Amino acid sequence: MAKRRRGNGNNGTSNGASGIKKTKTENGSIPSGKKQLHLTAFMRPVSLHTGAWRYPGAYADANFNLAHLKSFIRKLESAKFDAFFMADHLAVLNMPVEALKRSHTTTSFEPFTLLSALSQVTEKIGLAATASTTYDEPYHIARRFASLDHLSNGRAAWNIVTTGNPESAKNFGQDEHMQHSDRYKRAREFYDVVTGLWDSFADDAFIRDQKSGIFLDPEKMHTLNHKGDELQVKGPLNIARPVQGWPVIVQAGQSEPGRQLAAETAEAVFCSPKDLESAKSLYADIKERAEKAGRDRNHLKILPAVLIIIGDTAEEAQAKRLKLDSLVHYDSAISSLSIALGADASGFDPDAPLPTDLPETNASKSSRVGVLKLAEDEKLTVRQLAGRYGGYAGLAFVGTTESIANEMGRWLDEGGCDGFTVTLPFLPAGLDDVAEKLVPELQRRGIFRLDYEGTTLRDHLGLPRPQNQFFAKT
Amino acid sequence: MAKRRRGNGNNGTSNGASGIKKTKTENGSIPSGKKQLHLTAFMRPVSLHTGAWRYPGAYADANFNLAHLKSFIRKLESAKFDAFFMADHLAVLNMPVEALKRSHTTTSFEPFTLLSALSQVTEKIGLAATASTTYDEPYHIARRFASLDHLSNGRAAWNIVTTGNPESAKNFGQDEHMQHSDRYKRAREFYDVVTGLWDSFADDAFIRDQKSGIFLDPEKMHTLNHKGDELQVKGPLNIARPVQGWPVIVQAGQSEPGRQLAAETAEAVFCSPKDLESAKSLYADIKERAEKAGRDRNHLKILPAVLIIIGDTAEEAQAKRLKLDSLVHYDSAISSLSIALGADASGFDPDAPLPTDLPETNASKSSRVGVLKLAEDEKLTVRQLAGRYGGYAGLAFVGTTESIANEMGRWLDEGGCDGFTVTLPFLPAGLDDVAEKLVPELQRRGIFRLDYEGTTLRDHLGLPRPQNQFFAKT
Repeated sequence: MAKRRRGNGNNGTSNGASGIKKTKTENGSIPSGKKQLHLTAFMRPVSLHTGAWRYPGAYADANFNLAHLKSFIRKLESAKFDAFFMADHLAVLNMPVEALKRSHTTTSFEPFTLLSALSQVTEKIGLAATASTTYDEPYHIARRFASLDHLSNGRAAWNIVTTGNPESAKNFGQDEHMQHSDRYKRAREFYDVVTGLWDSFADDAFIRDQKSGIFLDPEKMHTLNHKGDELQVKGPLNIARPVQGWPVIVQAGQSEPGRQLAAETAEAVFCSPKDLESAKSLYADIKERAEKAGRDRNHLKILPAVLIIIGDTAEEAQAKRLKLDSLVHYDSAISSLSIALGADASGFDPDAPLPTDLPETNASKSSRVGVLKLAEDEKLTVRQLAGRYGGYAGLAFVGTTESIANEMGRWLDEGGCDGFTVTLPFLPAGLDDVAEKLVPELQRRGIFRLDYEGTTLRDHLGLPRPQNQFFAKT
Repeated sequence: MAKRRRGNGNNGTSNGASGIKKTKTENGSIPSGKKQLHLTAFMRPVSLHTGAWRYPGAYADANFNLAHLKSFIRKLESAKFDAFFMADHLAVLNMPVEALKRSHTTTSFEPFTLLSALSQVTEKIGLAATASTTYDEPYHIARRFASLDHLSNGRAAWNIVTTGNPESAKNFGQDEHMQHSDRYKRAREFYDVVTGLWDSFADDAFIRDQKSGIFLDPEKMHTLNHKGDELQVKGPLNIARPVQGWPVIVQAGQSEPGRQLAAETAEAVFCSPKDLESAKSLYADIKERAEKAGRDRNHLKILPAVLIIIGDTAEEAQAKRLKLDSLVHYDSAISSLSIALGADASGFDPDAPLPTDLPETNASKSSRVGVLKLAEDEKLTVRQLAGRYGGYAGLAFVGTTESIANEMGRWLDEGGCDGFTVTLPFLPAGLDDVAEKLVPELQRRGIFRLDYEGTTLRDHLGLPRPQNQFFAKT
């Protein structure tokens, strides 16, 4: 089997690999000369906050209502987002019944079917679907992404996951979940097979000459014949090469093998740093690994997840957040706080500050330090802290459009990210705020596009179109 | 595990299980009192005829052009077809390079992605996708069909196939194709698991009470815990019960185990009888097996495949067919004729009748008898016979709208079918002829609907909505 390497991008339609716009665009967007943000929206679930569906004015069924999802993606496209991003699970997550009955994510659409449907009500926005390398087959995965890429005219992305949830194993005939290291070994080989299958045909393989009767040039079809440690796949794929050559590769790893897999294969990385300092460290590490793997560091975009809550004032934004946190049921909230503290918090006075005499813990000290810092910074009661940990305790920008735009610009300038994976607090209002208030502010500052400059997701992200590894460009 | 039985249909929205319309419909269609035809269109490939893409005026890329496929399905919906039906393959079919380079089916969309996209440009027509029980997992299959059924508001159907093509095995890590009997054993169990997963939630399981914070009633969620000979699947599925309860079950088996599987599970049967006599025999056999399996014979619709070519006169229709057959390359055509004859035909004079002194054969006598009868009936030369066998030699109705409507009515009246799976000779003209000439004639005769009377594919086919096997209707 030929050694596989990504193309050098000299046949791409990239807007410039550095991410800095240098030329005036045809559609009238202003060339700012500034590094540009990339924005994707985390849309399964539509909010990661467990109280989101109960927020006043929120659509309770937002995760499972096609009409709502259509309006959300159209709104994101009107705001010129790079992509709509779907996480996925291959099971009803194992949780206590008290939590299960309050979960708004138990029923959701399946990614390929939903994104294919949404491809027909949008024209430009990217469509990123999660698919598992542990519980699916490379021939199916290669084919479905190729088909989605053709149906959407070049807007598909594959979020490669190894599926860490042990409940999934039991839905696929396995008693034990595959070991972490085995999952990553299979994932790496799976990626080679899928990208090899995408290259089954040269871009000009299909001739379709009605007069001569020649439909296809068999010299331009490659049979993969992959025989590896984990997978044996003959090929060729029964679909023409994707519009983008390969759909965009997305990864969400933060573990050691996850970072390495991302550095070797990913073109966009979804990650969850807790603050700018840790983001800078992660950013530098993954970019360095990518260069060591022989890749261009600009061909890998790092997009930390961030919850965004916007108010007309900082106080209003913080009030929205406290309101949202308050909608998490106390039983599950306090249990999340207990885990974060490494101590049973169920006996604490809910409406008082944290006791000063917390018992010793054998659990993560850094997690407890984080709780104490949060309690101090925001002056939160036990109930409010519980709501935070039971709702969404990850990175959040909460404030005015100006303060959030400042923060985003700072992360971009200081090497913390190439953009963000935006997670929303509640729908539709939280999404409308991002699309109608925050994005225009970012545009005014010249760090986000005024319009799409190309048609494919690779165009939006400034990524080259990979060369076919088996056929020279003709 | 509870014994699974299909519901008795008393909770369905059927238009009458007998297939005879008895009441005046709201939309003004005329109650004829006559048994009604069901029509589905075989759309992957869009034509089964190997010369179709070369016909004058045909779209050469019809199988792989979304704009064309959208126009085809809209045309079929305007003609009130029951469903758009996609066959499928999990490989580039193994054929000699001379045939491969002339095949118009090597690149096609994947069924779930294509049908999900088409669901958004149509409102009523059913969407039938082929999915393999040999090379896929029941959790994936159950989930994707449930998702397609929700996205399409109750229009999905699953064509269960066991995948007979040995090339597919090599794309899924297997050297040897699974034995026929093993495939059917797994298929039967796979069906039990998929339908069990569809019933994971009662229809009213999702409460979504924003005030109390209760999203889901856990008492209305069933964990399958399937542990069978072939499959172990825990469940529950992470998607609400499909709109149709279960998507419609389609089967294409003609073999002994195929007929039995169809009789036990199918609600629509795709089959390929060569004439009315063999159709009547197949029809009677499958209906009888269904009754023996405890099912209502009217809840299984038998829809033979038929190629339809329409002319203003019988002669014009026959000329179209000969023109179409002539577009098959002679090398592959003559090799198909040789197989049908059980003798090498490559040395025969192409433009003369078949020689009378054919060599003896050890191959199928009935196949040779068929060739001789065809040569006699239509006075065909060797070249024309070769074009027929290399193009499409299955059941065909070739004539005027009147003669074809007569034939369809006769099959329906005499117990040969409940309708047809229409295969088209070339696109778009052959489809336009069916939609704009044949269907209005069938409507005039009162044997085909003037408009859809319901919204789901079960409504169109007159099939009951299955009861949830784990939860009583509330």
